[in-house]
Amino acid sequence: MPGKLPRNYAIVFGRPARALQTVDQMTKTNLPLNADRLWADVMALADITDPARPYTRRSFTALFLEGRAFLAKAFADAGLAARIDTSGNLIGRIEGTEPALGVIAIGSHSDTVPAGGRFDGIAGVATGLEIVRALRDAGLRPRHTIEVIDFLAEEPSEYGLSCVGSRGMTGSLDDKMLDLREPGGEKLRDALRRVGGDPDRLDLAKRGDIRAFLELHIEQGIVLESRFLDVGVVTSIVGIRRIEIIFQGEADHAGTTPMALRHDALVAAANTVASVRLAAEQLAAEGADYFVATVGILNVDPSASNIVPGRCRLIVDARATNPELTKRFTEIVDRESMAHGAAARVARASFAILSNGPPMSCDESLRSALRQGARDLGLAETDLPSGAGHDAAFMSRIAPSAMVFVPCRAGKSHAPEEWADRDAIAAGAAVIYQAVRAIDQSPR
Amino acid sequence: MPGKLPRNYAIVFGRPARALQTVDQMTKTNLPLNADRLWADVMALADITDPARPYTRRSFTALFLEGRAFLAKAFADAGLAARIDTSGNLIGRIEGTEPALGVIAIGSHSDTVPAGGRFDGIAGVATGLEIVRALRDAGLRPRHTIEVIDFLAEEPSEYGLSCVGSRGMTGSLDDKMLDLREPGGEKLRDALRRVGGDPDRLDLAKRGDIRAFLELHIEQGIVLESRFLDVGVVTSIVGIRRIEIIFQGEADHAGTTPMALRHDALVAAANTVASVRLAAEQLAAEGADYFVATVGILNVDPSASNIVPGRCRLIVDARATNPELTKRFTEIVDRESMAHGAAARVARASFAILSNGPPMSCDESLRSALRQGARDLGLAETDLPSGAGHDAAFMSRIAPSAMVFVPCRAGKSHAPEEWADRDAIAAGAAVIYQAVRAIDQSPR
Repeated sequence: MPGKLPRNYAIVFGRPARALQTVDQMTKTNLPLNADRLWADVMALADITDPARPYTRRSFTALFLEGRAFLAKAFADAGLAARIDTSGNLIGRIEGTEPALGVIAIGSHSDTVPAGGRFDGIAGVATGLEIVRALRDAGLRPRHTIEVIDFLAEEPSEYGLSCVGSRGMTGSLDDKMLDLREPGGEKLRDALRRVGGDPDRLDLAKRGDIRAFLELHIEQGIVLESRFLDVGVVTSIVGIRRIEIIFQGEADHAGTTPMALRHDALVAAANTVASVRLAAEQLAAEGADYFVATVGILNVDPSASNIVPGRCRLIVDARATNPELTKRFTEIVDRESMAHGAAARVARASFAILSNGPPMSCDESLRSALRQGARDLGLAETDLPSGAGHDAAFMSRIAPSAMVFVPCRAGKSHAPEEWADRDAIAAGAAVIYQAVRAIDQSPR
Repeated sequence: MPGKLPRNYAIVFGRPARALQTVDQMTKTNLPLNADRLWADVMALADITDPARPYTRRSFTALFLEGRAFLAKAFADAGLAARIDTSGNLIGRIEGTEPALGVIAIGSHSDTVPAGGRFDGIAGVATGLEIVRALRDAGLRPRHTIEVIDFLAEEPSEYGLSCVGSRGMTGSLDDKMLDLREPGGEKLRDALRRVGGDPDRLDLAKRGDIRAFLELHIEQGIVLESRFLDVGVVTSIVGIRRIEIIFQGEADHAGTTPMALRHDALVAAANTVASVRLAAEQLAAEGADYFVATVGILNVDPSASNIVPGRCRLIVDARATNPELTKRFTEIVDRESMAHGAAARVARASFAILSNGPPMSCDESLRSALRQGARDLGLAETDLPSGAGHDAAFMSRIAPSAMVFVPCRAGKSHAPEEWADRDAIAAGAAVIYQAVRAIDQSPR
């Protein structure tokens, strides 16, 4: 249609003509799936939101169950048998011609953060669904059984836990976690029961039959967009360590306490923020591995303009693809926060590692299939690490797992302005489609 | 009573034998007033507290009015005529033999902060009352009219304003302030009416007949205690400047945003906290004037462990006896906070002076009378500045004013553990008694 440019990622972001043509040509002629149908599912799920706070579909809520009802119907329409496993995952399944080969699973999550976006998680679930439909449309009957999975509660839930479903499916959901409560007092184990799971039979959710797990997700970063690339093949998912540091000083009168007699907890905390930043910049600049660290929470007590801060708590979030960097970072921050406390004459009352997820490497054979899929479709791809956690990180504990990232506008995520283009999602889904076909035809 | 030591400040704090004997001898033989009676008033007022949160008697509340009823009765018992002026101050008055000489006023406030102490303010009101009773017991009839004043709402009130009564008495309570509202929506002008004032006739509250204003207060610092001194004669009350600084960055994903691409508002804020501390230490170390500065509030938005802080707000509280230091400090923090914003690639969205009270010098002639009073009683005294604001700072706008500080345990104030010894309060009150007698007998 000369003279009329398609609504396209390339137009929005000024992608150069070469890449524009690549996507355009692909979506018009080569794509092995239906980009409009995939997009329609994403938009339909986005519409299932708290209208006062788009886009909100929190796990365990009525809206979440409404989203799942939509998905279950779509699964059925696509010929998938839908069930909920004991750890609360919605699974659509279509038997393969040689079921002994095992399962190829594709999925992500349909829950959102509060006031989140339309794509985070959803795009990956809809991708699985569209791949099954596309295989059917093409008259292809896979040898492997295919499952499309909507993992329960990937986002941090009201119960203080993320990745509830993928933890459950991989044997990583323990009794202590099930006893977590949301602010209203309900335990996670009871919430799990409410959405169709069975906390007493999590053994039934644990899987040993999955040959490959594949997840599409928006990048939530700006590497693909800034380099005008179509897809990212994830090399590894960062390990995330959370450290709580508490400084205990004395809450004195801000007028009557001379500078030399203060025990100001905020001075120690502020200098620690500076140390975290400097150490993170230095480790990231080494270049061999991905490293970031953030102080996202800093509580000041009592928080009054005329009182010297008596107590400060800060949470450090450190992420690395190489655990050695996390170790070095922790040592630096341990040493420097102790010194900052001493200099401010306050006690470093706590230096506690709250959580510590190890990094996960994506399966090399699956990555190779994904890269090949992109090349076959004429798409521009790159390897890149994931700075965010994903269900795939848990799934890698029980099955070869890999991920595809698609570009999202300005890297924004977990916000209503989160955006990924129709053709960008379709391109990523097509890469997974190609990989599924290759895996299905390869020997075990 | 050999073998039995009196309950005494000296015992608690290990005051050396010399000072112990001074206080002991004084309280037993030389004090021109009744330490037990003064103490009983302070304790009786302390008992008028929210039982769930001692010691709480917030201005404008039923408990506050109960405290005032106690005081009004005590004023009447002491022969004082009690009234409430149009700015809500409770005033007890006894006419002098030569009323044309003017008024010697003694006072402080009976309201508290939430979960405050038993002495802050109260000790000064009870001192005025005890001095009137002591003069009467001694058969002395002053030439000057004496007034004992319980100023309304010296502590920051729910309406966002402190020193309401002393502002009113000095013509410093304007319409904008009267329109301030507490969280429930009531205007200060209506609250003032509720406690017996008249916001439409504040002109009647403004005074021109006060020859001297004297206020006793706990030090709220540790100078007197650490130097084993009985009383501090206040040289000046600091000016207080509050500065609000806001940094606006971008709230990005803490996992997917590389260090080099961040706009972290907390990094700029933390470095500003460090600059405030360093500048304050340097200005204080110059030694000629009193200077302190504090960051007591630092808000982080959105305050999530996995999100790079997008916005930070901090409040700087700077206090000096010399406004030149405040000016230099403001210039340093202005310059450095701007630089920290630029270095962190965030906007310094605001640098606003929220309030700016000038310092106040105590009247030299009254200070001299107070020092002489201490010497006459054999008490160890020193000059010292006040780092906290007081009603005396406003009263100095309309009358020669001065203050006496008495030691308090570990400098703690605005907290239930606030403590001043019976004999420490009595010693300070006696110094004011001596000064009142000297002023009363001196020529105009």
